[in-house]
Amino acid sequence: MKSNREEFPILQEKINGQPMVYLDSAATSQKPKAVLESLKAYYEQDNANVHRGLYTLSMRATDAYEAARDKVKGFLNAAERETILFTRGTTESLNWVAQSYGGSHLQPGDEIVLTYAEHHSNLVPWQIVAKQTGAKLRYADLTEKGQVDLVKLAELLNEKTKIVAINHVSNVLGTVNPIQEVTALAHEVGAVVVVDGAQAAPHIPLDVQALDADFYAFSGHKMLGPTGIGVLYGKRELLEEMPPAQYGGEMIEAVGLYESTFQPLPELFEAGTPNIAGAIGLGAAIDYLQDYGFDRLQKEMGTLIEAAQKGLSKIEGLTIYGPTNPAERVGVLSFNLTGVHPHDLSTVLDQYGVEVRAGHHCAQPLMQYLDVSATVRASFYLYNDMEDVQRLIAAVQAAKEFFNDDNSRT
Amino acid sequence: MKSNREEFPILQEKINGQPMVYLDSAATSQKPKAVLESLKAYYEQDNANVHRGLYTLSMRATDAYEAARDKVKGFLNAAERETILFTRGTTESLNWVAQSYGGSHLQPGDEIVLTYAEHHSNLVPWQIVAKQTGAKLRYADLTEKGQVDLVKLAELLNEKTKIVAINHVSNVLGTVNPIQEVTALAHEVGAVVVVDGAQAAPHIPLDVQALDADFYAFSGHKMLGPTGIGVLYGKRELLEEMPPAQYGGEMIEAVGLYESTFQPLPELFEAGTPNIAGAIGLGAAIDYLQDYGFDRLQKEMGTLIEAAQKGLSKIEGLTIYGPTNPAERVGVLSFNLTGVHPHDLSTVLDQYGVEVRAGHHCAQPLMQYLDVSATVRASFYLYNDMEDVQRLIAAVQAAKEFFNDDNSRT
Repeated sequence: MKSNREEFPILQEKINGQPMVYLDSAATSQKPKAVLESLKAYYEQDNANVHRGLYTLSMRATDAYEAARDKVKGFLNAAERETILFTRGTTESLNWVAQSYGGSHLQPGDEIVLTYAEHHSNLVPWQIVAKQTGAKLRYADLTEKGQVDLVKLAELLNEKTKIVAINHVSNVLGTVNPIQEVTALAHEVGAVVVVDGAQAAPHIPLDVQALDADFYAFSGHKMLGPTGIGVLYGKRELLEEMPPAQYGGEMIEAVGLYESTFQPLPELFEAGTPNIAGAIGLGAAIDYLQDYGFDRLQKEMGTLIEAAQKGLSKIEGLTIYGPTNPAERVGVLSFNLTGVHPHDLSTVLDQYGVEVRAGHHCAQPLMQYLDVSATVRASFYLYNDMEDVQRLIAAVQAAKEFFNDDNSRT
Repeated sequence: MKSNREEFPILQEKINGQPMVYLDSAATSQKPKAVLESLKAYYEQDNANVHRGLYTLSMRATDAYEAARDKVKGFLNAAERETILFTRGTTESLNWVAQSYGGSHLQPGDEIVLTYAEHHSNLVPWQIVAKQTGAKLRYADLTEKGQVDLVKLAELLNEKTKIVAINHVSNVLGTVNPIQEVTALAHEVGAVVVVDGAQAAPHIPLDVQALDADFYAFSGHKMLGPTGIGVLYGKRELLEEMPPAQYGGEMIEAVGLYESTFQPLPELFEAGTPNIAGAIGLGAAIDYLQDYGFDRLQKEMGTLIEAAQKGLSKIEGLTIYGPTNPAERVGVLSFNLTGVHPHDLSTVLDQYGVEVRAGHHCAQPLMQYLDVSATVRASFYLYNDMEDVQRLIAAVQAAKEFFNDDNSRT
């Protein structure tokens, strides 16, 4: 198949004199021309504030913004467009659920179940609301692959469990959690399931109805979209029984001096001028992904991940975390090299133009669970190719030799 | 001076076959090419996640994002860059102050003083936090021009007053409030002053230190910047004694299973991936405004507003709200035509390509105070010219004739 690299102008950048190999898509993805052009077209042809104006330009802006909501509805296979709320990103989406749903539903003694593999954005908001309400956090163990252990999860669940908050795909291990099984178990005890879909949305065709997810959160910027836009999906009955997180224009019906009444969904949750261009850009990213096709994307990613995992495994002293079967891994590959700090390794890789992330990946409890302080993480997306994989492997090999020489000298 | 209209591609659009006259800049401004190019350049050259990566591209993205914070610091003449927080916009900024500062400081019986001219975004959040904490709302009267009445304000202030929330420029009347006098009065009783600067930032050179504002909020999209980005400035000691509104990546120091510690300002308030491109675009908007010069801008706006006010005043049955002296008015002109509903008037103006807003302008208490249900509002910015003013006046005149004919037939 034809490479799509020319659609991503940034991939032509040089890093330290080398062609750039961008392998930090799990942190943020690059953007195709089609997305950048959608932003430009909006600002150059349709820009006005939404919902409020009766004039032509404002109606054009409103139509474009609401069309983006429809695209998200299709992307998630949500039943109703009103259940799609635009946020700044996954972090805001999860904070809204924790504060607005959690804050209004949790009682002292209630339990919130998480896994050890949660990103801080699906963990710290629950710590805070637990303190505010007197609820308790409980952690489900992981299997060796890094998935939630369903047996252990079932043991944790009981009539006190009100919320299960879980990632769909781990941002460190790339493991896919069996969300459908998790929701089935959680719903048996009456708990709602909050899914952090930040790493899943770019890679997996989603169906919130089939997953039976109560809340689903993801970010635009990790799936070819602009920064500053994300989504919170929620089942209508749950969204309707939680207070909005912010108040102001657009979300009100009538404002008196001391009392106000509010709009129905989705306006209720979108106080103030939204990130209009961001939503439209996210819509363009969804169009791009759907044109590309998740079948093709998953097949290509599988090939790259398999080659990377195979090549890196041959390097002595290199440990890869997560599933040993690359087919069970989505997007990311975390690893360490014995005797080399991940930060140092990433700094040397950068000298070869290879852009990877090193650190705790906003998942410190998982680092403790894995008994490491940090890892190097290479993450792939639809603009990467086999040459990127080869350059990664060659750079790690070169770094290893560099540090071996360095160690042998001292 | 040379017109800058060619720098705003959208102004070439036709509306209903007519050249577009965009007069809703108080809702959102149009964007110059320089801002759109800054977004494109970021995405095509520097896009990566900020703060987290040790690699070259991430450092470039971080530098660009933090350079935008420095530009905002300069724009506000804030003393410290750490006191500049990026938000989605004014509404989010004001919600953060209400919930985080208000929510943690207000006690039953405490008082929050507002004016009757506040936008819903500087009013509903205070209604909510007042209910949550048992604080009371009190409203300061306006002078005939629509400014806060300083005598009445002084009478309202007492040792129970903890917060004064006030607009810098009214989004309906265009009046400028004497913020320096307000902060002096409020500080005498130990209250903090929260300034809604959404309408001021595009038009007035700001100096939060000279104003002695405790909090200052504004939006990027109303001052040539992209959608989805805004600013909350706060005095360091106040920001440091309020909890963050959101929790997640970037803002943590260490995360345990049950407890976490957090970063200092400004990261503390910026959980998750921020609107990186939005901040950079706002920085480009600030550059544009500073190159243009507020002296020139204010002079040009004054000329347009004066001509519009003069021309519209001659139309029989037309009432203009706010200052009679156009020199006391910033950016906006609200009016009504006897016997014609503002919505109908704006719809007819749209037929002439004149894009104005009609409604309550997210200021229902002010509408009640003015004893009107709605107004038409024409708002101007640096891309408008005298021809726009003439087309507005001619269109209102034509609309008046249309409705007169219509009334005489029925």
